[in-house]
Amino acid sequence: MKKEINIALIGTRFMGRAHTNAWIDVTGFYDLPIQPVLKAACDIDPALEESFARRHGWESFETSWEKVVSRDDIDVVDICTSNASHHPIALAAASAGKHILCEKPLAMSGDQAREMAEAADHAGVVNMTAFNYRRVPAVQYAKQMIGEGKLGRIYHFNAVYLQDFFADPGFLWLWRCDREIAGSGAHGDMNAHIVDLARYLVGEFASVSGAMETFTRERPKPDGSMGRVTVDDATYFMARFDNGALGSFNATRCASGRKNHMRIEIYGSKGSLVFNLERLNELEYFSASDAPGEQGFRNIIVTEKEHPYIRKWWPPGHIIGWEHTFIHEIGDFLTAIASNQKVTPDFEDGYRCQQVLDAVIQSAREGQWQQIPAN
Amino acid sequence: MKKEINIALIGTRFMGRAHTNAWIDVTGFYDLPIQPVLKAACDIDPALEESFARRHGWESFETSWEKVVSRDDIDVVDICTSNASHHPIALAAASAGKHILCEKPLAMSGDQAREMAEAADHAGVVNMTAFNYRRVPAVQYAKQMIGEGKLGRIYHFNAVYLQDFFADPGFLWLWRCDREIAGSGAHGDMNAHIVDLARYLVGEFASVSGAMETFTRERPKPDGSMGRVTVDDATYFMARFDNGALGSFNATRCASGRKNHMRIEIYGSKGSLVFNLERLNELEYFSASDAPGEQGFRNIIVTEKEHPYIRKWWPPGHIIGWEHTFIHEIGDFLTAIASNQKVTPDFEDGYRCQQVLDAVIQSAREGQWQQIPAN
Amino acid sequence: MKKEINIALIGTRFMGRAHTNAWIDVTGFYDLPIQPVLKAACDIDPALEESFARRHGWESFETSWEKVVSRDDIDVVDICTSNASHHPIALAAASAGKHILCEKPLAMSGDQAREMAEAADHAGVVNMTAFNYRRVPAVQYAKQMIGEGKLGRIYHFNAVYLQDFFADPGFLWLWRCDREIAGSGAHGDMNAHIVDLARYLVGEFASVSGAMETFTRERPKPDGSMGRVTVDDATYFMARFDNGALGSFNATRCASGRKNHMRIEIYGSKGSLVFNLERLNELEYFSASDAPGEQGFRNIIVTEKEHPYIRKWWPPGHIIGWEHTFIHEIGDFLTAIASNQKVTPDFEDGYRCQQVLDAVIQSAREGQWQQIPAN
Amino acid sequence: MKKEINIALIGTRFMGRAHTNAWIDVTGFYDLPIQPVLKAACDIDPALEESFARRHGWESFETSWEKVVSRDDIDVVDICTSNASHHPIALAAASAGKHILCEKPLAMSGDQAREMAEAADHAGVVNMTAFNYRRVPAVQYAKQMIGEGKLGRIYHFNAVYLQDFFADPGFLWLWRCDREIAGSGAHGDMNAHIVDLARYLVGEFASVSGAMETFTRERPKPDGSMGRVTVDDATYFMARFDNGALGSFNATRCASGRKNHMRIEIYGSKGSLVFNLERLNELEYFSASDAPGEQGFRNIIVTEKEHPYIRKWWPPGHIIGWEHTFIHEIGDFLTAIASNQKVTPDFEDGYRCQQVLDAVIQSAREGQWQQIPAN
Repeated sequence: MKKEINIALIGTRFMGRAHTNAWIDVTGFYDLPIQPVLKAACDIDPALEESFARRHGWESFETSWEKVVSRDDIDVVDICTSNASHHPIALAAASAGKHILCEKPLAMSGDQAREMAEAADHAGVVNMTAFNYRRVPAVQYAKQMIGEGKLGRIYHFNAVYLQDFFADPGFLWLWRCDREIAGSGAHGDMNAHIVDLARYLVGEFASVSGAMETFTRERPKPDGSMGRVTVDDATYFMARFDNGALGSFNATRCASGRKNHMRIEIYGSKGSLVFNLERLNELEYFSASDAPGEQGFRNIIVTEKEHPYIRKWWPPGHIIGWEHTFIHEIGDFLTAIASNQKVTPDFEDGYRCQQVLDAVIQSAREGQWQQIPAN
Repeated sequence: MKKEINIALIGTRFMGRAHTNAWIDVTGFYDLPIQPVLKAACDIDPALEESFARRHGWESFETSWEKVVSRDDIDVVDICTSNASHHPIALAAASAGKHILCEKPLAMSGDQAREMAEAADHAGVVNMTAFNYRRVPAVQYAKQMIGEGKLGRIYHFNAVYLQDFFADPGFLWLWRCDREIAGSGAHGDMNAHIVDLARYLVGEFASVSGAMETFTRERPKPDGSMGRVTVDDATYFMARFDNGALGSFNATRCASGRKNHMRIEIYGSKGSLVFNLERLNELEYFSASDAPGEQGFRNIIVTEKEHPYIRKWWPPGHIIGWEHTFIHEIGDFLTAIASNQKVTPDFEDGYRCQQVLDAVIQSAREGQWQQIPAN
Repeated sequence: MKKEINIALIGTRFMGRAHTNAWIDVTGFYDLPIQPVLKAACDIDPALEESFARRHGWESFETSWEKVVSRDDIDVVDICTSNASHHPIALAAASAGKHILCEKPLAMSGDQAREMAEAADHAGVVNMTAFNYRRVPAVQYAKQMIGEGKLGRIYHFNAVYLQDFFADPGFLWLWRCDREIAGSGAHGDMNAHIVDLARYLVGEFASVSGAMETFTRERPKPDGSMGRVTVDDATYFMARFDNGALGSFNATRCASGRKNHMRIEIYGSKGSLVFNLERLNELEYFSASDAPGEQGFRNIIVTEKEHPYIRKWWPPGHIIGWEHTFIHEIGDFLTAIASNQKVTPDFEDGYRCQQVLDAVIQSAREGQWQQIPAN
Repeated sequence: MKKEINIALIGTRFMGRAHTNAWIDVTGFYDLPIQPVLKAACDIDPALEESFARRHGWESFETSWEKVVSRDDIDVVDICTSNASHHPIALAAASAGKHILCEKPLAMSGDQAREMAEAADHAGVVNMTAFNYRRVPAVQYAKQMIGEGKLGRIYHFNAVYLQDFFADPGFLWLWRCDREIAGSGAHGDMNAHIVDLARYLVGEFASVSGAMETFTRERPKPDGSMGRVTVDDATYFMARFDNGALGSFNATRCASGRKNHMRIEIYGSKGSLVFNLERLNELEYFSASDAPGEQGFRNIIVTEKEHPYIRKWWPPGHIIGWEHTFIHEIGDFLTAIASNQKVTPDFEDGYRCQQVLDAVIQSAREGQWQQIPAN
């Protein structure tokens, strides 16, 4: 009988559902020495006990995160709440000695994030920031190829993250429009992902120059009044990396027709890679070492046994979906707990990402490039 | 407390794993009035008790399908064995009054398939042939669009199903090369799918003209001897449909670079549709009703709330994978059981598909077109 | 001063315009030892003297092809008339000792085509059938790669040629609907091209099985009456090649949304190629020799100096168009005349293509496979 | 007999060849009231008289541009020399009352460009800056769609212009590496195009923030010594437009695998457009007005009679090439001369483009946003 490890999920909306699915499926597809138990789910809305917690098999339900975090029978706290509450929950969980998985962006600011990283470190708990796109097989394979020198010297990391749900000015005001609740707009939600991937694939940022824009400053509310929009619709920035690469980052919620279009293009002296989240089973690769006349971007379907994570799944060409990134994330998180090792991206990575995001905001405000502090 | 319904899985390899995953996940994503219980898994290899059945949560394990089928505590038999055994297991299950889900192709011949359909019908059990691709959201949406007349009169249904694992003549002999065990090669495995989709999307077949080929007639065995290949590497055929459409079907295991490339192109008087299984979240649609100058194939990302099954899953642009087709299939199968209704594709559909496959074989043998019997 | 060679163009519509453009541009881009002179254009419609011949610089204009062919100052006859007149014009031109370039399909039947090939051979004139797609750089590069063994053994040649101008049943009747004038429909017009490319890239045909269909048997005329359609809207066929490959050919004018979509997929034991005329500067190539995990179809932009014909044109990525195939064709034709050598595809190739087309028609009529006579 | 107009071409390399081809072909495809005569070609290298001028039919050849510009029999001066000489040649040509077509970038600085625009204006000659990409049919159709409001309010104009010939650090030093001769690197060569298209499609720039980079600061020379690279390999910048749109511009010569990849994405409140020069016959269009569930980027093949310039060419699906943009440009330029009207993009447009390019350079130097002066 495997050792059991008890999980508490805090926040049961979109991310809570995705994580729950992963907590359930990880058992069948990972050879884990420990067995996760869906011990407690928590949401401030009591209606979710029935519609969410029971349905998915969570053994108990709470409406107070403070109570969950302090329960003795909980080993792991999985934070899927809105951004503003990550900081207090994570500090409490670390203080209670729980391992912590926290959704991104880790915090509302770099200062908060550093405090969380220090708390987790001090408590000696396994901690992870849920930048799940590191665990897309194609992305991890890209990391491997870059590490093997397949791209040579990296010249450019160009990333866009495009969505369109705010393209229509008549789209109703919602809580995401309010900075006090949401923390930020496109920047914190979408640039957080591509900043993390840039750090993962290319390395640390040296400096940034940003521009933030809110195209629609008021949106209608159901009662006919207008609500103010205090977050960014779009944040663009340029970046220089420590290794000399030059980068471009565009995040927007106003790109009509783009649903979840995170596209990354990496250009190096020996080769190039292109990845698009809407086709997450594919990776385009150009090799300058191919025979002259036969060179071209090749479209690798990343479902071969040579590719990361794929042996857990299906035969070649049988594609996996977005949700599988969470299964990989949670599988690796559990593996780290079982062996009492660190796992990345951890809270430190969450903090470093936040530093970059903060510098972009400051740069946009001041109209000047900002340096990223070295660590 | 929901009524429980007890499932037995027979065959625990590739398809058994995919079905198991679906039996587990269906609970969280479907609002079902009944609760499936993973009661028994069955495989002739006893080692799979530990490595498969326990790991995935099956409550018991058997090595005899006869025993499983006769157990009183089983309500549903899910047949995931190799093709040759579908017929006896299904007949026994029907006789025992179990609901039956059976993998495709339903049988080794049209005669077998008809017998199975009649047995299930006579027993009054819910029966389904696991043509899971009917439940790709894009495919089901295509069906809906055709039904609404968006394509006008259908002129052409062109389908290819291309894989490449036999392209290399040095690839080792395996059981799939032996007709006695495998039943058939590319034809039964791959044409079965596209024949079913043609019937689903366009209608019944009128006549066919086929060509079958085995490019590599001997393959090396590990012991250095050569094994004979008695199945087809490729089967191509043309078809006429009852509604006058002209079709082309190419299935092969020798298309280097194609992994699971099932591509369907449907051309009508008012519009066209293109679908490719390797990009199963996308559907290309051409409408002749678009403004002149603005016409073109549009790439619909089939992850909107308007699309079939998608409300169960994630926001737009967050793609699902191949395995989700089984969750949809099993969700609909359970819904049919709960409401005591028929579900399609049923055994009758499996039989009609088999008739077409049989006619292609006969046509290839005789070098002439073959009529498909009307029913 | 270069030796001049005098050209006569017969037929000044679509093909006549394309050839004229090539006769003009070839001088600037080919290093030719002879100088073509646009001596005479010919069309039965006298209005074209002003609107076509003078405008494009043809020195004289005739309305009788018999007169042009017999003029002493003509060295080359370029036949761009409708299909039914190719045969008499070519025989007269050969008899008069003129070099001949003739549009495809070469003739109305294999018998006519053989007669033309024999006449040209007997007269000792340089003769060419204008299968211009052999001179798309990507196609010629594909030929070269196949010749070098990059694809290994060829298993499959699958080609479609899809257009849509007859998809709308309300599209008006025109002369192309009448077999007496047009010779044939999709088959002669479109299958002629892909049959020629199959012979060029894979080799000779062994046998074929065809199906021809006219979906709309009557079309409205401007006066309100209905005109009968006596040609095929679509002709599909399967083929076996002398080298054992299995092929599929679909030509139709009823594929809504497809404008000039000639797509060829060639699958071999070591690699595969895909070409689409609508993207004629691109060639997709899969190599089974690429490192495992890094394999995929690569999209070669065929505009590098290593590629056929490209040194005559522009830097990498500056694409050429459909009309350039005629410049290549006429450049190679002139080069052959200057050096008094044969050039392919010649009338013999036109004849061999016609044999295959004829066999498809007979097969469709009889519902059986037809052998292609060996030569 | 049409009135003749005498052309002088100055500079006979890459651009000179492309323009020559257009001067020749324009006659056949445009209905022009005047007839261009290839009167004089000019290059400092006398060898080009034989290898270029005679071959292409230029009636005379000069090695001094001063002489050509002063010839009485010249009506139009077409400047295809390297960037540094545009300014003196254009001033002299204007002074001599010649109509002027000048390659881009118009000048080495905004000051030069303004002087040229004023001189041409003062002389009353027709003047045009050869931003040929405005005359890609897809681009002009995009302009038309935007003008009709199909995109609604424009939020974003994102453009990349990617090439790769400097990706290899071992690529030899050439004159393009020297700022004194070349004027600039990627910025002047490539950003000039996308800045012009941004002005054409979206409107005037308000401010910019740029970053310039030279990755390889020394390149080997054939004699074994190293040559300094004093131009930029890459220039990235962000922009705000007068109408509130936010833009991103990336130009680089170090994007391995990209040959002439100028890709533009325009996102508006009602729709979006994507264009890629390597597929210049295609335009992707997303319309938020399409029925829910049927929305997607549609790939318009821009070869229909409804599309700009296409009636001059071939039937649908028969693609045109890069060189055709020059035929359109020169056709429109001649039309303007014949009717004594202005044509755009004129020297004023060349100047406005140069202002933006200059501001990007200054911004990169100072690390701050720069305003573009209003006019």
